[in-house]
Amino acid sequence: MSVIDELVANAERYGPQLSRLRPPARPAKRVAVISCMDARINVYKLLGLAEGDAHVICNAGGVVTADERRSLAISQRLLGTREIILIHHTDCGMQKFTDDAFRRQIEAEVGVKPDWAVESFTDLDADVIQSINRIKADPCIPHKDSIRGFVYEVETGRLREVRP
Amino acid sequence: MSVIDELVANAERYGPQLSRLRPPARPAKRVAVISCMDARINVYKLLGLAEGDAHVICNAGGVVTADERRSLAISQRLLGTREIILIHHTDCGMQKFTDDAFRRQIEAEVGVKPDWAVESFTDLDADVIQSINRIKADPCIPHKDSIRGFVYEVETGRLREVRP
Repeated sequence: MSVIDELVANAERYGPQLSRLRPPARPAKRVAVISCMDARINVYKLLGLAEGDAHVICNAGGVVTADERRSLAISQRLLGTREIILIHHTDCGMQKFTDDAFRRQIEAEVGVKPDWAVESFTDLDADVIQSINRIKADPCIPHKDSIRGFVYEVETGRLREVRP
Repeated sequence: MSVIDELVANAERYGPQLSRLRPPARPAKRVAVISCMDARINVYKLLGLAEGDAHVICNAGGVVTADERRSLAISQRLLGTREIILIHHTDCGMQKFTDDAFRRQIEAEVGVKPDWAVESFTDLDADVIQSINRIKADPCIPHKDSIRGFVYEVETGRLREVRP
């Protein structure tokens, strides 16, 4: 049995249970979360989110690129969210290489450089601020009064706020 | 107490519990999930994912844009994932408007059009296939032998596979 078959078998068990909860499509807590795809961070459990509470947006690093700005604009304009919480974390893979090295490695292997920025970073707090600033700089995202950024410390489980 | 304060208070309770599990940074099931940010879909619960199992990537629609291809390249090249599962869902907000209408609405309101494609779609199955094809077309993503796409039916909780 492949891993995907196993996950699909889990969904056969849990899907009908989740469906019966009939959660709302419009996030009840009117909040969007942007976090890292990291395997150690289940954002729902960490933040105590129930079905129907929030939009959860995840990628490598929890950084803000065009796609997160797209998702936030849709979240706020069409589905009523008003607050944004960003979460980076310690021991993040994105701190362990550079854009240049990753791009060179790919070019050496497949002959082309990626057509996307890698978005590696060294300073966690600075990248949280960078992500907030990118949201603030996008005129298509209407609600920016409540944007807060945090670092989840995988060593202790503490969620530490980053103050600009 | 603001919503974010409430979520942070939850994290103070659950964060240390999650941290004590000491899950691995490299996803144990070597799988990356791409799903919609929809408030109704907690992908961890739906697929029965434990901490440390998988990379979870989410955005509006569960579509594949440059940022998802970036996250997948990092996931596979640096953190060892080999399989990809994509999940769209019925009653998705992305089916309820058009790119043109959304862009016009933003332009009328703030004077600029977004510098990102909106990525709305009408046909769920076709957009799952489109997302798979975008992954296959990116030479920077090395492992493409096991990519499977699904539609989660919010009405029944069934996870239906989309066959190309």
